[in-house]
Amino acid sequence: MSFLGPKGTFTHEVASKLSDNLISFCTIPAVLESVSTGECDKGIVPIENSIEGSVTQTLDLFAHKYNLKILNEVVLPINHNLIVNKGVKLEEITDIYSHSQALGQCQNFINQNNIQPHFAISTANAVKSIVGMENAAAIGNKKAAELYDMDILIDNIQDVSNNETRFVVVSNHDHVPTGNDKTSIAFSIFEDSPGALYKILGIFYEANINLAKIESRPSKKGLGNYIFFIDLVGHRLDENIKNILGRIEDNTSFFKVLGSYPIFQR
Amino acid sequence: MSFLGPKGTFTHEVASKLSDNLISFCTIPAVLESVSTGECDKGIVPIENSIEGSVTQTLDLFAHKYNLKILNEVVLPINHNLIVNKGVKLEEITDIYSHSQALGQCQNFINQNNIQPHFAISTANAVKSIVGMENAAAIGNKKAAELYDMDILIDNIQDVSNNETRFVVVSNHDHVPTGNDKTSIAFSIFEDSPGALYKILGIFYEANINLAKIESRPSKKGLGNYIFFIDLVGHRLDENIKNILGRIEDNTSFFKVLGSYPIFQR
Repeated sequence: MSFLGPKGTFTHEVASKLSDNLISFCTIPAVLESVSTGECDKGIVPIENSIEGSVTQTLDLFAHKYNLKILNEVVLPINHNLIVNKGVKLEEITDIYSHSQALGQCQNFINQNNIQPHFAISTANAVKSIVGMENAAAIGNKKAAELYDMDILIDNIQDVSNNETRFVVVSNHDHVPTGNDKTSIAFSIFEDSPGALYKILGIFYEANINLAKIESRPSKKGLGNYIFFIDLVGHRLDENIKNILGRIEDNTSFFKVLGSYPIFQR
Repeated sequence: MSFLGPKGTFTHEVASKLSDNLISFCTIPAVLESVSTGECDKGIVPIENSIEGSVTQTLDLFAHKYNLKILNEVVLPINHNLIVNKGVKLEEITDIYSHSQALGQCQNFINQNNIQPHFAISTANAVKSIVGMENAAAIGNKKAAELYDMDILIDNIQDVSNNETRFVVVSNHDHVPTGNDKTSIAFSIFEDSPGALYKILGIFYEANINLAKIESRPSKKGLGNYIFFIDLVGHRLDENIKNILGRIEDNTSFFKVLGSYPIFQR
């Protein structure tokens, strides 16, 4: 299984629970490419965080570039730690390094302590980059602190509780029905058709299908032009869902099933 | 007027067309704070790009923190330039610096030329940071290249056409009706109410009100919990819009009018 690395990222933490045979890639496109070419049979990438929102690169690649399927979803509670070189105290820290999402999730802490934030390509890279720096800290997970023999000065420095990230395992096929499934779809509505989204949502509503998620992303064709991502409860092979998806396809200018997979059990 | 600086950003380019009395702030929260406290009567920040999507920090601050109003919108076509120190050639460039959105919008160019991307806090900062560096380039606008006496090696290096950014001018009040207006609202639907969004969209559809935009952002209360941002055609003081907004408010758990303002004329 390929994962969004390097070692010590949150994705690594999830991936290591799923497989013993892990290959690290540095970017989300590289993970998806490794599955698309068959180099890896599965890959895992983040898709959504409860505070920062969608991982837009993942959604855009699913919609525009790859024909991969979602095989599974995994939800991980995110605890951000203030990681420093051994012996460094809070008042000595002038600069803090992390992935942009992690910095965004700890904005109050950063502002209150008047520390200059710096972007890193991942939380693990951030921890690696401050090895030996006395006035710097990184935001990352326990695994990264252990990996580079650093101290966790303060744990849970994120602004709000309910901080969770949803990851998806992608493959060239999706999951067989289990009786408790979700289906992810992406579609664009016809332009200049007032109420087009309203009518699509009506198809779900009248069929009594619950929507677990609705998000929009620019279609990249100009302002006001969107691709919608919907997660609905049910499997694409269920008879009623199959009919509904056919009707949605007939009423959209672009339509893609991203996969059916078991709902994650906490 | 306060703007998202420093000098040489795209926001600066727009702001300089609107006012001669400009004050630069380094972050979006700082711009909004300057208007909220009354230090500045107006401020300008980016809200949406046709390729990268919403500027999520701006939306989140409107929804969760500030009670500011949108007074105007401005749409700017975004042309990204490859900026280098005088005499530097394309084949010499190993590293490229820019804001994450600009790097995202030029991904194909960066990949094709096998250049290592680095995040900077703004496009203007990126240009400033490479002064004197022979193997580096920055992505930014003409104004920044002029400001630091650099060369534009290639213009329009963005992946796709239709690259536009929408900016909003915020104030403590919105705009009087002009007869060609838009209204921005934010709301959350009641949880565990199937079809809640469908019913809200139905209110607009039945009243024949056109929606120019619909976006969702996490409410920060947990996965699957959203705030929706809708731009509708009409002014909040128009009699029919006033009635509709009252009905929307009655059917939502959170509701906020972000302002009514003239539709931007290209």
